[in-house]
Amino acid sequence: MRNISRLLLNKNIYRCVGTFRSFSGIPGEPNGPHIKTSIPGPRSKALLSELNEIQQTGSVQLFADYSNSIGNYLIDADGNILLDSFTQISSIPVGYNHPELLNVFKQENVLKAFINRPALGVFPGDYWPSLLKDVLLSISPGLPQVTTMMCGSCSNENAYKNLFIRYQKRARGGDIRFTQDEERSCMVNMPPGSPKLSLMSFHGAFHGRTFGALTTTHSKAIHKLDIPAFDWPIAPFPKYKYPLEENARENKAEDEKCLADVEELFEQYKKKGIPVAGIVVEPIQSEGGDNEASPEFFQGLQNIAKKNGAGLLIDEVQTGCGATGKMWCHEHFNLSSPPDIVTFSKKMQIGGYFHTDEMRPDHPYRVFNTWMGDPGKIFLLQAVIKVINQNNLLKNVQITGAKLKSGLHKLEQEYPNLINSVRGRGTFLAFNAPSPKLRDEILNSLKKKGVQSGGCGELAIRLRPALIFQEKHADIYLDRLAQVLQEI
Amino acid sequence: MRNISRLLLNKNIYRCVGTFRSFSGIPGEPNGPHIKTSIPGPRSKALLSELNEIQQTGSVQLFADYSNSIGNYLIDADGNILLDSFTQISSIPVGYNHPELLNVFKQENVLKAFINRPALGVFPGDYWPSLLKDVLLSISPGLPQVTTMMCGSCSNENAYKNLFIRYQKRARGGDIRFTQDEERSCMVNMPPGSPKLSLMSFHGAFHGRTFGALTTTHSKAIHKLDIPAFDWPIAPFPKYKYPLEENARENKAEDEKCLADVEELFEQYKKKGIPVAGIVVEPIQSEGGDNEASPEFFQGLQNIAKKNGAGLLIDEVQTGCGATGKMWCHEHFNLSSPPDIVTFSKKMQIGGYFHTDEMRPDHPYRVFNTWMGDPGKIFLLQAVIKVINQNNLLKNVQITGAKLKSGLHKLEQEYPNLINSVRGRGTFLAFNAPSPKLRDEILNSLKKKGVQSGGCGELAIRLRPALIFQEKHADIYLDRLAQVLQEI
Repeated sequence: MRNISRLLLNKNIYRCVGTFRSFSGIPGEPNGPHIKTSIPGPRSKALLSELNEIQQTGSVQLFADYSNSIGNYLIDADGNILLDSFTQISSIPVGYNHPELLNVFKQENVLKAFINRPALGVFPGDYWPSLLKDVLLSISPGLPQVTTMMCGSCSNENAYKNLFIRYQKRARGGDIRFTQDEERSCMVNMPPGSPKLSLMSFHGAFHGRTFGALTTTHSKAIHKLDIPAFDWPIAPFPKYKYPLEENARENKAEDEKCLADVEELFEQYKKKGIPVAGIVVEPIQSEGGDNEASPEFFQGLQNIAKKNGAGLLIDEVQTGCGATGKMWCHEHFNLSSPPDIVTFSKKMQIGGYFHTDEMRPDHPYRVFNTWMGDPGKIFLLQAVIKVINQNNLLKNVQITGAKLKSGLHKLEQEYPNLINSVRGRGTFLAFNAPSPKLRDEILNSLKKKGVQSGGCGELAIRLRPALIFQEKHADIYLDRLAQVLQEI
Repeated sequence: MRNISRLLLNKNIYRCVGTFRSFSGIPGEPNGPHIKTSIPGPRSKALLSELNEIQQTGSVQLFADYSNSIGNYLIDADGNILLDSFTQISSIPVGYNHPELLNVFKQENVLKAFINRPALGVFPGDYWPSLLKDVLLSISPGLPQVTTMMCGSCSNENAYKNLFIRYQKRARGGDIRFTQDEERSCMVNMPPGSPKLSLMSFHGAFHGRTFGALTTTHSKAIHKLDIPAFDWPIAPFPKYKYPLEENARENKAEDEKCLADVEELFEQYKKKGIPVAGIVVEPIQSEGGDNEASPEFFQGLQNIAKKNGAGLLIDEVQTGCGATGKMWCHEHFNLSSPPDIVTFSKKMQIGGYFHTDEMRPDHPYRVFNTWMGDPGKIFLLQAVIKVINQNNLLKNVQITGAKLKSGLHKLEQEYPNLINSVRGRGTFLAFNAPSPKLRDEILNSLKKKGVQSGGCGELAIRLRPALIFQEKHADIYLDRLAQVLQEI
């Protein structure tokens, strides 16, 4: 159990501070937030009413001025300047209008690769193999194969197919041929061709909203109501008590209880005639409330998956690309081998997944679609990775994250009735309010003070700043949050 | 039955030829194909072996040089110049490197809209409402609402959700509240919250490869094997005898038989406790073999859907954006009202769907994801629509299509043992070979003569040229095809 607190507290990161040459920031950033109108302001409200004629707009918070937004600052259509700790649901890696990203499509060959969007599975561009190797595989968490897709949901949906395909290949003893009965029955959605198999997911999980992904999503009812779903098993995800170091024994027991339930569900669904082909899990449950689990929990999960011949898919759509201080959050877990599949999207610009050789289908066209991703997005990612490396942004995340986390710990001690359960890694941090109402009040008050932030789950406020969020931005965030808490 | 032959033969289109000022073509196009090496050539083979280290490449035909491809000509990595009648599985609307498309991202505000990719459902750009109206809704087939997505599969998956949401709202008598039982049960994938409902699709259909879309796809076993699917009803799609005008009576009987089966399946699945919430259909079954059906069939289908309180979704992912000589293929069908939902992607650059007001969810976050499409792609579509309008490309498609179709009819009369069943609308045409082996032989021989073409189903060769494919290109296509047929 020592490991939980050691890793979750990120003590290691202080070691590198001494040798770190600090990232100098984005030229042209404002000095701080500046609020001129209510939010949404009059211009946003007019645009909202226009948009509402042609689509459901209940989720829209404001309209943004993306021509003038810069670095960590989102500027809205009314000229309000917001420090952005949410970054388009965690999908802006190096801030708004980063000069390197603005330059990408000024190279003619890159522009042409983007404009002439190919069917990558049939007619890839001559640039494609080296682009995949130099960009995507350069940041792979030890997995040799890569499949590109368009978004997070599609990445999970298709990766789920790899899990089933691998499981059935093993069930056939490695034989890659199909029976006539399988070929016939799958065409009408019936077994044995469309087998009764399942994937295990967790209560509180979010993996997307298309039919396969949605079956494994259990964060909010409104995402799932009225949509048919598969009968697949759902395991409990650990619920920790905070602060971690004071609750080590209970939290360890929680890990053990959850892992026992996972094992039990494997048996239960085998008996039910719907065996489990894979486990699907987030390294930190994000939409479900920033629920974290210990390295030991994930190590145990991997062992159970292996024992049952099931694949382990770690969904890094929200946690991936550096925000936890490592490129991939699961790299904090000291797994004995890489997961079978790691899915990505959001900050990566492009969707897709890394996987083992064993997860590669033997036949073409089993995981396939017209576009299979988008080369233009990988050229953008190439620039993102260049910026991360040149500016040592993983270290920046570690340093800024440490400052944010210790500031939040101070605030939870000062205002224990208003915030609690500070948690997370790097700048991928969260804390809880005691009630949904108070959580929303804090979010709204932060916005009035010029900080764009996001909620998740019932009680949590999550931090999802860009990788260029520096200590000076952390100071502003903490200062405004302190003001909000004081005023409540 | 008169209508079938009248519309399928596209007699109308000749009327406009007299007043048509011909589209002058793309500057810099080669005069014809030119083949220097085998395909794949040595460079493509080397790239293939490199790519094969990191992903399944069994579907790759060649590597392309997208910097030098131009107009209707795809140039491969070995310098072979191919007349492209397949256009990246029907997804290149106005040819390679069209100057208008190359200019789109030279406008700084457009580049910034693309680079700063927002979470469109929460923080849309100030350009967003007018972009949707001026671009997407300007070509809507009479539907007032639009939802944007990333690709065809995602568009269908999410549109399916709208069908279920609307069906359940009606079942609640218009009440938009949920019961506690529904909210609780959906979180564990069980009814009543995750209801036992179904969508009806057709044998031979293709709607994508994610779990919901794949359940409605029935074109090839390799797409479906080993992947769990829902128990949803599958109806027969009409199989016509050709030539249509000689088989009018049989084909009418075929329509009636298929429609009777559709009605029967509604009853059967109601009795089974899995009522049908919607029908999902392509206007021409594309991947399944370019199977067309008459306007009367689609009119009947719409009537049956209405009678049963089910929505009608027409999937125009492959048929949409002008290739049939109208912007949307179903506009050939004289439906009494627009379909409830029309999905699009491919040539449209962006995925998404148009829909009725009734199909709009009352609550936010029911159809939602991080990106909800990509503004950069709509700016590209804006340029595509400008090119279509300025060059009168729908008329170009009608004229070129008429030439191609009459040329193909001539060839099927000349070589009745080699090709048959010429069919389709505009340049969205196809013909059959008598066997899969002979079909593949024709495809390969066409490629050796410099024509890139595509197969579909078991026997079909499909034409999917860009909208800028002119009569001179049709001449080359028909000439090379005649040579191939003569040599076999």
